Amino acid sequence: MNVEKPRILLTNDDGIHSEGIVALEKALRDVGDVFVVAPVSEMSGASHSLTLSRPLRIRQIDERHWTVDGTPTDCVTLAINRILPPELHPHLCASGINHGENLGDDATYSGTVAGALESTILGVPGLAFSLVAGRSYDFTESAKIAEQLVAKAIKNGLPKDTLLNVNVPKGKPKGIRITKQGFKNARPVISEHRDPRGKLYYWIGEERNGFHAEGGTDFEAVDEGFVSVTPMRSDLTNHPAIKTLKDWNDSFKF
Amino acid sequence: MNVEKPRILLTNDDGIHSEGIVALEKALRDVGDVFVVAPVSEMSGASHSLTLSRPLRIRQIDERHWTVDGTPTDCVTLAINRILPPELHPHLCASGINHGENLGDDATYSGTVAGALESTILGVPGLAFSLVAGRSYDFTESAKIAEQLVAKAIKNGLPKDTLLNVNVPKGKPKGIRITKQGFKNARPVISEHRDPRGKLYYWIGEERNGFHAEGGTDFEAVDEGFVSVTPMRSDLTNHPAIKTLKDWNDSFKF
Repeated sequence: MNVEKPRILLTNDDGIHSEGIVALEKALRDVGDVFVVAPVSEMSGASHSLTLSRPLRIRQIDERHWTVDGTPTDCVTLAINRILPPELHPHLCASGINHGENLGDDATYSGTVAGALESTILGVPGLAFSLVAGRSYDFTESAKIAEQLVAKAIKNGLPKDTLLNVNVPKGKPKGIRITKQGFKNARPVISEHRDPRGKLYYWIGEERNGFHAEGGTDFEAVDEGFVSVTPMRSDLTNHPAIKTLKDWNDSFKF
Repeated sequence: MNVEKPRILLTNDDGIHSEGIVALEKALRDVGDVFVVAPVSEMSGASHSLTLSRPLRIRQIDERHWTVDGTPTDCVTLAINRILPPELHPHLCASGINHGENLGDDATYSGTVAGALESTILGVPGLAFSLVAGRSYDFTESAKIAEQLVAKAIKNGLPKDTLLNVNVPKGKPKGIRITKQGFKNARPVISEHRDPRGKLYYWIGEERNGFHAEGGTDFEAVDEGFVSVTPMRSDLTNHPAIKTLKDWNDSFKF
Protein backbone atom coordinates (compact mmCIF):
# COMPACT_ATOMS: atom_id res chain seq x y z
CA MET A 1 0.00 0.00 0.00
CA ASN A 2 1.59 3.28 -1.05
CA VAL A 3 -0.64 6.30 -1.03
CA GLU A 4 0.27 9.90 -0.51
CA LYS A 5 -2.28 10.75 2.14
CA PRO A 6 -3.79 7.52 3.47
CA ARG A 7 -7.21 7.64 5.10
CA ILE A 8 -7.36 6.20 8.60
CA LEU A 9 -10.56 5.23 10.40
CA LEU A 10 -10.42 5.45 14.19
CA THR A 11 -12.64 3.71 16.70
CA ASN A 12 -12.42 2.42 20.28
CA ASP A 13 -14.50 0.87 23.04
CA ASP A 14 -14.01 3.49 25.74
CA GLY A 15 -16.17 6.02 23.90
CA ILE A 16 -15.39 9.03 21.69
CA HIS A 17 -14.49 11.31 24.61
CA SER A 18 -11.87 9.03 26.19
CA GLU A 19 -8.30 10.26 26.47
CA GLY A 20 -6.93 7.26 24.59
CA ILE A 21 -8.71 7.97 21.30
CA VAL A 22 -7.91 11.68 21.53
CA ALA A 23 -4.20 10.84 21.91
CA LEU A 24 -4.39 8.35 19.03
CA GLU A 25 -6.05 10.86 16.73
CA LYS A 26 -3.43 13.49 17.51
CA ALA A 27 -0.61 11.03 16.82
CA LEU A 28 -2.05 9.75 13.54
CA ARG A 29 -2.76 13.18 12.05
CA ASP A 30 0.86 13.21 10.87
CA VAL A 31 0.44 9.85 9.14
CA GLY A 32 -2.83 10.34 7.28
CA ASP A 33 -6.32 11.78 7.00
CA VAL A 34 -8.11 10.72 10.16
CA PHE A 35 -11.86 10.02 10.53
CA VAL A 36 -13.30 9.03 13.90
CA VAL A 37 -16.43 6.88 14.34
CA ALA A 38 -16.68 5.76 17.95
CA PRO A 39 -19.25 4.67 20.55
CA VAL A 40 -21.04 7.49 22.33
CA SER A 41 -20.32 5.80 25.68
CA GLU A 42 -18.07 3.15 27.21
CA MET A 43 -18.41 -0.31 25.67
CA SER A 44 -15.69 -2.29 27.48
CA GLY A 45 -16.11 -6.04 27.22
CA ALA A 46 -18.29 -5.61 24.13
CA SER A 47 -16.27 -8.23 22.25
CA HIS A 48 -17.19 -8.65 18.57
CA SER A 49 -20.86 -8.00 19.25
CA LEU A 50 -23.02 -6.53 16.56
CA THR A 51 -26.29 -4.78 17.43
CA LEU A 52 -28.97 -6.69 15.55
CA SER A 53 -32.02 -6.45 17.79
CA ARG A 54 -32.48 -2.67 17.77
CA PRO A 55 -31.80 0.22 15.41
CA LEU A 56 -28.76 2.47 15.79
CA ARG A 57 -28.38 6.23 15.83
CA ILE A 58 -25.51 8.03 14.18
CA ARG A 59 -24.61 11.56 15.29
CA GLN A 60 -22.23 13.72 13.28
CA ILE A 61 -20.17 16.03 15.47
CA ASP A 62 -18.13 17.68 12.72
CA GLU A 63 -16.77 16.71 9.32
CA ARG A 64 -14.38 14.16 10.84
CA HIS A 65 -16.20 12.88 13.94
CA TRP A 66 -19.29 10.71 14.40
CA THR A 67 -20.75 8.82 17.36
CA VAL A 68 -22.83 5.64 17.25
CA ASP A 69 -24.95 4.37 20.18
CA GLY A 70 -23.53 0.90 19.75
CA THR A 71 -20.42 -1.27 19.89
CA PRO A 72 -17.02 -0.81 18.21
CA THR A 73 -18.09 -3.44 15.65
CA ASP A 74 -21.23 -1.41 14.87
CA CYS A 75 -19.08 1.71 14.49
CA VAL A 76 -16.71 0.10 11.99
CA THR A 77 -19.37 -1.50 9.82
CA LEU A 78 -21.41 1.75 9.79
CA ALA A 79 -18.30 3.84 9.06
CA ILE A 80 -17.19 1.72 6.12
CA ASN A 81 -20.62 0.92 4.68
CA ARG A 82 -22.61 4.06 5.40
CA ILE A 83 -20.90 7.05 6.99
CA LEU A 84 -17.81 7.46 4.80
CA PRO A 85 -18.62 7.93 1.10
CA PRO A 86 -16.79 5.63 -1.38
CA GLU A 87 -14.18 8.32 -2.10
CA LEU A 88 -13.28 8.38 1.59
CA HIS A 89 -13.03 4.56 1.96
CA PRO A 90 -10.31 4.04 4.58
CA HIS A 91 -6.94 2.42 3.89
CA LEU A 92 -6.54 1.33 7.48
CA CYS A 93 -8.44 1.17 10.77
CA ALA A 94 -6.91 1.87 14.20
CA SER A 95 -8.78 1.00 17.38
CA GLY A 96 -7.92 2.40 20.83
CA ILE A 97 -5.84 3.42 22.60
CA ASN A 98 -7.58 1.29 25.22
CA HIS A 99 -7.36 2.23 28.89
CA GLY A 100 -5.97 -1.14 30.03
CA GLU A 101 -4.33 -4.15 28.41
CA ASN A 102 -5.93 -6.71 26.10
CA LEU A 103 -3.66 -9.70 26.60
CA GLY A 104 -4.15 -13.45 26.40
CA ASP A 105 -7.71 -14.83 26.36
CA ASP A 106 -8.96 -11.34 27.26
CA ALA A 107 -8.52 -10.43 23.59
CA THR A 108 -11.67 -12.47 22.91
CA TYR A 109 -13.74 -10.18 25.21
CA SER A 110 -12.21 -6.97 23.91
CA GLY A 111 -14.17 -4.37 22.02
CA THR A 112 -10.89 -2.69 21.06
CA VAL A 113 -9.61 -5.83 19.34
CA ALA A 114 -13.05 -6.40 17.80
CA GLY A 115 -12.97 -2.98 16.09
CA ALA A 116 -9.79 -3.97 14.26
CA LEU A 117 -11.15 -7.48 13.61
CA GLU A 118 -14.31 -6.07 12.01
CA SER A 119 -12.37 -3.80 9.67
CA THR A 120 -10.13 -6.74 8.72
CA ILE A 121 -13.19 -8.88 7.87
CA LEU A 122 -14.43 -5.96 5.74
CA GLY A 123 -11.09 -5.83 3.90
CA VAL A 124 -9.55 -2.84 5.69
CA PRO A 125 -6.33 -3.71 7.60
CA GLY A 126 -6.79 -3.17 11.33
CA LEU A 127 -4.60 -2.45 14.36
CA ALA A 128 -5.77 -2.47 17.98
CA PHE A 129 -3.86 -0.47 20.60
CA SER A 130 -4.02 -0.92 24.37
CA LEU A 131 -2.01 0.59 27.20
CA VAL A 132 -1.29 -1.63 30.18
CA ALA A 133 -3.30 -0.50 33.20
CA GLY A 134 -1.63 1.63 35.80
CA ARG A 135 -2.75 4.01 38.53
CA SER A 136 -2.96 6.71 35.90
CA TYR A 137 -2.63 6.68 32.15
CA ASP A 138 0.04 8.50 30.20
CA PHE A 139 -0.54 7.97 26.49
CA THR A 140 2.68 9.67 25.34
CA GLU A 141 4.67 6.51 24.63
CA SER A 142 1.75 4.46 23.31
CA ALA A 143 0.80 7.25 20.90
CA LYS A 144 4.38 7.33 19.56
CA ILE A 145 4.31 3.55 19.03
CA ALA A 146 0.90 3.72 17.35
CA GLU A 147 2.12 6.39 14.96
CA GLN A 148 5.14 4.29 13.91
CA LEU A 149 3.23 1.00 13.65
CA VAL A 150 0.44 2.54 11.57
CA ALA A 151 3.00 4.18 9.27
CA LYS A 152 4.77 0.82 8.89
CA ALA A 153 1.48 -1.04 8.25
CA ILE A 154 0.57 1.49 5.54
CA LYS A 155 4.00 1.17 3.94
CA ASN A 156 4.42 -2.64 4.15
CA GLY A 157 0.82 -3.82 4.33
CA LEU A 158 -0.28 -6.52 6.78
CA PRO A 159 -0.39 -10.28 6.18
CA LYS A 160 -3.68 -11.37 4.53
CA ASP A 161 -6.78 -11.34 6.79
CA THR A 162 -4.59 -10.34 9.72
CA LEU A 163 -4.93 -7.63 12.34
CA LEU A 164 -2.35 -6.57 14.89
CA ASN A 165 -3.17 -6.56 18.59
CA VAL A 166 -0.70 -4.10 20.13
CA ASN A 167 -0.17 -3.81 23.90
CA VAL A 168 2.12 -1.12 25.27
CA PRO A 169 3.73 -1.54 28.71
CA LYS A 170 3.84 1.14 31.37
CA GLY A 171 6.76 3.59 31.11
CA LYS A 172 9.32 3.68 28.33
CA PRO A 173 9.28 0.47 26.24
CA LYS A 174 12.56 -1.43 25.68
CA GLY A 175 11.56 -2.44 22.16
CA ILE A 176 8.98 -4.37 20.18
CA ARG A 177 8.28 -8.11 20.19
CA ILE A 178 6.10 -10.08 17.78
CA THR A 179 4.18 -12.44 20.07
CA LYS A 180 1.50 -15.07 20.34
CA GLN A 181 -1.60 -14.85 22.52
CA GLY A 182 -0.96 -16.24 26.02
CA PHE A 183 -3.20 -17.52 28.78
CA LYS A 184 -3.97 -15.65 31.99
CA ASN A 185 -4.20 -17.14 35.46
CA ALA A 186 -7.42 -15.62 36.68
CA ARG A 187 -10.45 -16.55 38.68
CA PRO A 188 -13.80 -14.84 38.08
CA VAL A 189 -15.11 -13.23 41.25
CA ILE A 190 -18.83 -12.50 41.35
CA SER A 191 -19.77 -9.95 43.98
CA GLU A 192 -23.25 -9.86 45.47
CA HIS A 193 -25.02 -6.71 46.60
CA ARG A 194 -28.50 -5.61 47.68
CA ASP A 195 -30.35 -2.72 46.05
CA PRO A 196 -32.37 -0.18 48.12
CA ARG A 197 -35.44 -2.43 47.71
CA GLY A 198 -33.56 -5.37 49.21
CA LYS A 199 -33.18 -7.27 45.94
CA LEU A 200 -29.91 -8.94 45.03
CA TYR A 201 -27.73 -7.94 42.11
CA TYR A 202 -24.33 -9.14 40.89
CA TRP A 203 -21.17 -7.69 39.38
CA ILE A 204 -18.74 -9.75 37.34
CA GLY A 205 -15.10 -9.20 38.33
CA GLU A 206 -11.95 -11.25 38.56
CA GLU A 207 -8.88 -11.93 40.63
CA ARG A 208 -5.64 -11.91 38.62
CA ASN A 209 -2.66 -14.01 39.40
CA GLY A 210 -0.18 -13.52 36.56
CA PHE A 211 -0.12 -15.66 33.42
CA HIS A 212 0.98 -19.06 32.15
CA ALA A 213 4.78 -19.14 32.03
CA GLU A 214 5.37 -19.81 28.35
CA GLY A 215 7.90 -18.17 26.05
CA GLY A 216 6.93 -15.78 23.28
CA THR A 217 3.57 -14.63 24.60
CA ASP A 218 2.02 -11.18 24.73
CA PHE A 219 2.00 -11.41 28.54
CA GLU A 220 5.72 -12.14 28.70
CA ALA A 221 6.60 -9.26 26.38
CA VAL A 222 4.80 -6.53 28.33
CA ASP A 223 5.91 -8.07 31.63
CA GLU A 224 9.51 -7.63 30.47
CA GLY A 225 8.89 -4.05 29.34
CA PHE A 226 8.42 -4.61 25.59
CA VAL A 227 5.61 -3.59 23.26
CA SER A 228 3.70 -6.76 22.31
CA VAL A 229 2.47 -7.05 18.70
CA THR A 230 0.30 -10.14 18.15
CA PRO A 231 -0.87 -10.94 14.61
CA MET A 232 -4.46 -12.21 14.84
CA ARG A 233 -7.17 -13.47 12.54
CA SER A 234 -10.87 -14.29 12.63
CA ASP A 235 -10.24 -18.03 12.26
CA LEU A 236 -11.06 -19.77 15.57
CA THR A 237 -10.31 -23.26 14.21
CA ASN A 238 -8.03 -25.46 16.28
CA HIS A 239 -6.42 -26.94 13.16
CA PRO A 240 -4.39 -29.75 14.78
CA ALA A 241 -7.59 -30.95 16.51
CA ILE A 242 -9.22 -31.66 13.14
CA LYS A 243 -6.98 -34.73 12.86
CA THR A 244 -7.55 -35.78 16.48
CA LEU A 245 -11.30 -35.82 15.91
CA LYS A 246 -11.27 -37.53 12.52
CA ASP A 247 -12.62 -40.84 13.88
CA TRP A 248 -15.64 -39.04 15.30
CA ASN A 249 -17.22 -39.25 11.84
CA ASP A 250 -18.46 -42.80 12.28
CA SER A 251 -20.76 -44.29 14.88
CA PHE A 252 -23.51 -41.69 14.59
CA LYS A 253 -27.13 -42.64 13.97
CA PHE A 254 -29.39 -40.48 11.84
CA MET B 1 -14.26 -38.28 31.54
CA ASN B 2 -16.33 -41.18 32.87
CA VAL B 3 -19.01 -40.31 35.35
CA GLU B 4 -22.25 -42.11 36.01
CA LYS B 5 -24.57 -39.11 35.79
CA PRO B 6 -22.67 -36.19 34.26
CA ARG B 7 -23.88 -32.67 34.95
CA ILE B 8 -24.58 -30.58 31.88
CA LEU B 9 -24.95 -26.79 31.86
CA LEU B 10 -27.16 -25.40 29.12
CA THR B 11 -27.21 -21.88 27.75
CA ASN B 12 -28.03 -20.12 24.47
CA ASP B 13 -28.36 -16.68 22.91
CA ASP B 14 -31.99 -16.83 21.79
CA GLY B 15 -33.27 -16.66 25.38
CA ILE B 16 -34.56 -19.26 27.81
CA HIS B 17 -37.98 -19.55 26.18
CA SER B 18 -36.73 -20.31 22.66
CA GLU B 19 -37.66 -23.61 21.05
CA GLY B 20 -34.04 -24.54 20.43
CA ILE B 21 -33.00 -24.68 24.07
CA VAL B 22 -36.18 -26.50 25.05
CA ALA B 23 -35.42 -29.18 22.42
CA LEU B 24 -31.78 -29.39 23.57
CA GLU B 25 -32.77 -29.82 27.21
CA LYS B 26 -35.23 -32.58 26.35
CA ALA B 27 -32.59 -34.42 24.29
CA LEU B 28 -29.85 -34.15 26.92
CA ARG B 29 -31.98 -35.35 29.84
CA ASP B 30 -31.12 -38.92 28.78
CA VAL B 31 -27.40 -38.13 28.83
CA GLY B 32 -27.03 -36.34 32.16
CA ASP B 33 -28.33 -34.02 34.85
CA VAL B 34 -29.26 -30.82 33.05
CA PHE B 35 -29.14 -27.27 34.51
CA VAL B 36 -30.22 -24.29 32.40
CA VAL B 37 -28.85 -20.75 32.85
CA ALA B 38 -29.89 -18.64 29.88
CA PRO B 39 -30.54 -15.02 28.90
CA VAL B 40 -33.98 -13.71 29.75
CA SER B 41 -34.32 -12.32 26.21
CA GLU B 42 -32.76 -12.67 22.76
CA MET B 43 -29.04 -11.86 22.63
CA SER B 44 -28.17 -12.72 18.99
CA GLY B 45 -24.92 -11.20 17.82
CA ALA B 46 -23.75 -10.82 21.43
CA SER B 47 -20.40 -12.42 20.61
CA HIS B 48 -18.14 -13.07 23.60
CA SER B 49 -19.30 -9.91 25.36
CA LEU B 50 -19.24 -9.72 29.11
CA THR B 51 -21.41 -7.21 30.96
CA LEU B 52 -18.97 -5.11 32.98
CA SER B 53 -20.59 -1.67 33.08
CA ARG B 54 -23.77 -2.56 34.93
CA PRO B 55 -24.87 -5.13 37.53
CA LEU B 56 -26.77 -8.28 36.56
CA ARG B 57 -29.94 -9.85 37.93
CA ILE B 58 -30.36 -13.59 38.34
CA ARG B 59 -33.86 -15.07 38.54
CA GLN B 60 -34.42 -18.64 39.62
CA ILE B 61 -37.40 -20.24 37.92
CA ASP B 62 -37.18 -23.68 39.53
CA GLU B 63 -34.42 -25.93 40.87
CA ARG B 64 -32.97 -26.43 37.38
CA HIS B 65 -33.66 -23.16 35.55
CA TRP B 66 -32.30 -19.63 35.96
CA THR B 67 -32.41 -16.51 33.79
CA VAL B 68 -29.83 -13.72 33.64
CA ASP B 69 -30.48 -10.27 32.12
CA GLY B 70 -27.22 -10.48 30.19
CA THR B 71 -25.28 -12.30 27.50
CA PRO B 72 -24.52 -16.03 27.09
CA THR B 73 -21.01 -15.30 28.41
CA ASP B 74 -22.51 -13.68 31.53
CA CYS B 75 -24.79 -16.72 31.98
CA VAL B 76 -21.92 -19.21 31.82
CA THR B 77 -19.60 -17.36 34.19
CA LEU B 78 -22.44 -16.76 36.67
CA ALA B 79 -23.60 -20.39 36.42
CA ILE B 80 -20.15 -21.83 37.06
CA ASN B 81 -18.93 -19.30 39.62
CA ARG B 82 -22.10 -18.38 41.49
CA ILE B 83 -25.35 -20.16 40.67
CA LEU B 84 -24.32 -23.83 40.80
CA PRO B 85 -22.77 -24.87 44.13
CA PRO B 86 -19.38 -26.67 43.98
CA GLU B 87 -21.06 -30.08 44.24
CA LEU B 88 -23.03 -29.31 41.08
CA HIS B 89 -20.02 -28.06 39.07
CA PRO B 90 -20.81 -29.05 35.47
CA HIS B 91 -18.84 -31.64 33.49
CA LEU B 92 -19.83 -30.08 30.19
CA CYS B 93 -21.60 -27.04 28.73
CA ALA B 94 -23.92 -27.13 25.72
CA SER B 95 -25.03 -23.92 24.02
CA GLY B 96 -28.00 -23.65 21.64
CA ILE B 97 -29.67 -24.99 19.66
CA ASN B 98 -29.41 -21.71 17.80
CA HIS B 99 -32.14 -20.65 15.37
CA GLY B 100 -29.84 -20.20 12.39
CA GLU B 101 -26.33 -21.26 11.41
CA ASN B 102 -23.04 -20.00 12.87
CA LEU B 103 -20.64 -20.70 10.01
CA GLY B 104 -17.41 -19.10 8.84
CA ASP B 105 -16.48 -15.66 10.20
CA ASP B 106 -19.97 -15.41 11.70
CA ALA B 107 -18.74 -17.64 14.53
CA THR B 108 -16.88 -14.58 15.85
CA TYR B 109 -20.18 -12.64 16.25
CA SER B 110 -22.07 -15.58 17.72
CA GLY B 111 -23.38 -15.59 21.28
CA THR B 112 -24.05 -19.33 20.91
CA VAL B 113 -20.40 -20.08 20.15
CA ALA B 114 -19.32 -17.64 22.90
CA GLY B 115 -21.28 -19.59 25.53
CA ALA B 116 -19.24 -22.71 24.75
CA LEU B 117 -16.04 -20.64 24.47
CA GLU B 118 -16.58 -19.13 27.93
CA SER B 119 -17.09 -22.52 29.56
CA THR B 120 -13.95 -23.81 27.80
CA ILE B 121 -11.92 -20.87 29.15
CA LEU B 122 -13.31 -21.72 32.61
CA GLY B 123 -12.19 -25.35 32.21
CA VAL B 124 -15.57 -26.90 31.33
CA PRO B 125 -15.64 -28.50 27.85
CA GLY B 126 -18.15 -26.72 25.61
CA LEU B 127 -20.21 -27.53 22.53
CA ALA B 128 -22.23 -25.00 20.50
CA PHE B 129 -25.18 -26.20 18.41
CA SER B 130 -26.85 -24.31 15.56
CA LEU B 131 -29.49 -25.31 13.06
CA VAL B 132 -29.19 -23.90 9.55
CA ALA B 133 -31.91 -21.32 8.90
CA GLY B 134 -34.99 -22.36 7.02
CA ARG B 135 -38.52 -21.06 6.63
CA SER B 136 -39.40 -22.89 9.81
CA TYR B 137 -37.31 -24.75 12.36
CA ASP B 138 -37.63 -28.45 13.12
CA PHE B 139 -35.20 -29.33 15.90
CA THR B 140 -35.81 -33.12 15.73
CA GLU B 141 -32.62 -34.03 13.84
CA SER B 142 -30.38 -31.44 15.51
CA ALA B 143 -31.51 -32.60 18.97
CA LYS B 144 -30.60 -36.20 18.05
CA ILE B 145 -27.15 -35.09 16.87
CA ALA B 146 -26.63 -32.99 20.00
CA GLU B 147 -27.50 -35.94 22.22
CA GLN B 148 -24.98 -38.20 20.48
CA LEU B 149 -22.19 -35.60 20.30
CA VAL B 150 -22.56 -34.64 23.96
CA ALA B 151 -22.52 -38.32 24.98
CA LYS B 152 -19.39 -38.82 22.88
CA ALA B 153 -17.69 -35.71 24.31
CA ILE B 154 -18.44 -36.94 27.84
CA LYS B 155 -17.06 -40.39 27.04
CA ASN B 156 -13.96 -39.36 25.04
CA GLY B 157 -13.30 -35.85 26.36
CA LEU B 158 -12.41 -32.98 24.02
CA PRO B 159 -8.93 -31.87 22.92
CA LYS B 160 -7.38 -29.43 25.44
CA ASP B 161 -8.82 -25.88 25.47
CA THR B 162 -11.08 -26.82 22.57
CA LEU B 163 -14.80 -26.36 21.99
CA LEU B 164 -16.89 -27.80 19.19
CA ASN B 165 -18.94 -25.56 16.93
CA VAL B 166 -21.66 -27.81 15.51
CA ASN B 167 -23.90 -26.77 12.62
CA VAL B 168 -26.74 -29.03 11.52
CA PRO B 169 -28.12 -28.78 7.96
CA LYS B 170 -31.80 -28.65 7.11
CA GLY B 171 -33.51 -32.04 6.80
CA LYS B 172 -31.93 -35.42 7.45
CA PRO B 173 -28.10 -35.18 7.64
CA LYS B 174 -25.97 -37.52 5.50
CA GLY B 175 -23.31 -37.83 8.19
CA ILE B 176 -20.79 -35.83 10.18
CA ARG B 177 -17.69 -33.99 8.96
CA ILE B 178 -14.90 -32.51 11.05
CA THR B 179 -14.29 -29.13 9.42
CA LYS B 180 -12.39 -25.86 9.56
CA GLN B 181 -13.96 -22.40 9.74
CA GLY B 182 -14.63 -21.00 6.25
CA PHE B 183 -15.20 -17.50 4.89
CA LYS B 184 -18.54 -16.12 3.75
CA ASN B 185 -19.18 -13.98 0.72
CA ALA B 186 -21.32 -11.27 2.20
CA ARG B 187 -21.85 -7.55 1.97
CA PRO B 188 -23.19 -5.57 4.91
CA VAL B 189 -26.33 -3.67 4.01
CA ILE B 190 -27.24 -0.74 6.24
CA SER B 191 -30.87 0.29 5.92
CA GLU B 192 -31.98 3.81 6.72
CA HIS B 193 -35.37 4.72 8.21
CA ARG B 194 -37.10 7.70 9.76
CA ASP B 195 -38.79 7.59 13.16
CA PRO B 196 -42.16 9.31 13.82
CA ARG B 197 -40.27 12.48 14.82
CA GLY B 198 -38.49 12.52 11.48
CA LYS B 199 -35.10 11.48 12.84
CA LEU B 200 -32.97 8.91 11.04
CA TYR B 201 -32.09 5.49 12.40
CA TYR B 202 -30.20 2.54 10.95
CA TRP B 203 -30.39 -1.25 10.98
CA ILE B 204 -27.40 -3.45 10.27
CA GLY B 205 -28.14 -6.28 7.86
CA GLU B 206 -26.34 -8.14 5.10
CA GLU B 207 -26.65 -9.62 1.65
CA ARG B 208 -25.39 -13.19 1.41
CA ASN B 209 -23.82 -14.67 -1.64
CA GLY B 210 -22.54 -18.11 -0.69
CA PHE B 211 -19.05 -18.77 0.65
CA HIS B 212 -15.42 -19.06 -0.46
CA ALA B 213 -15.02 -22.29 -2.46
CA GLU B 214 -12.45 -24.11 -0.37
CA GLY B 215 -12.41 -27.78 0.63
CA GLY B 216 -13.00 -28.94 4.20
CA THR B 217 -14.91 -25.93 5.52
CA ASP B 218 -17.99 -25.75 7.74
CA PHE B 219 -19.86 -24.04 4.86
CA GLU B 220 -19.06 -26.86 2.43
CA ALA B 221 -20.17 -29.57 4.88
CA VAL B 222 -23.64 -28.16 5.56
CA ASP B 223 -24.03 -27.17 1.91
CA GLU B 224 -23.53 -30.85 1.01
CA GLY B 225 -25.99 -32.00 3.69
CA PHE B 226 -23.54 -32.99 6.43
CA VAL B 227 -23.34 -31.96 10.06
CA SER B 228 -20.30 -29.69 10.45
CA VAL B 229 -18.20 -30.09 13.61
CA THR B 230 -15.45 -27.45 13.89
CA PRO B 231 -12.95 -27.69 16.74
CA MET B 232 -12.27 -24.12 17.98
CA ARG B 233 -10.16 -22.41 20.60
CA SER B 234 -9.77 -18.98 22.15
CA ASP B 235 -6.38 -18.38 20.50
CA LEU B 236 -6.77 -15.73 17.79
CA THR B 237 -3.03 -15.73 16.92
CA ASN B 238 -2.14 -16.04 13.24
CA HIS B 239 0.89 -18.20 14.04
CA PRO B 240 2.52 -18.26 10.57
CA ALA B 241 2.38 -14.44 10.51
CA ILE B 242 4.68 -14.26 13.56
CA LYS B 243 7.54 -15.22 11.27
CA THR B 244 6.46 -12.86 8.51
CA LEU B 245 6.54 -9.93 10.89
CA LYS B 246 9.81 -10.80 12.65
CA ASP B 247 11.75 -7.98 10.98
CA TRP B 248 9.25 -5.45 12.35
CA ASN B 249 11.19 -5.51 15.61
CA ASP B 250 13.87 -3.10 14.47
CA SER B 251 13.58 0.45 13.18
CA PHE B 252 11.35 1.76 15.97
CA LYS B 253 12.20 4.84 17.96
CA PHE B 254 11.42 5.11 21.67
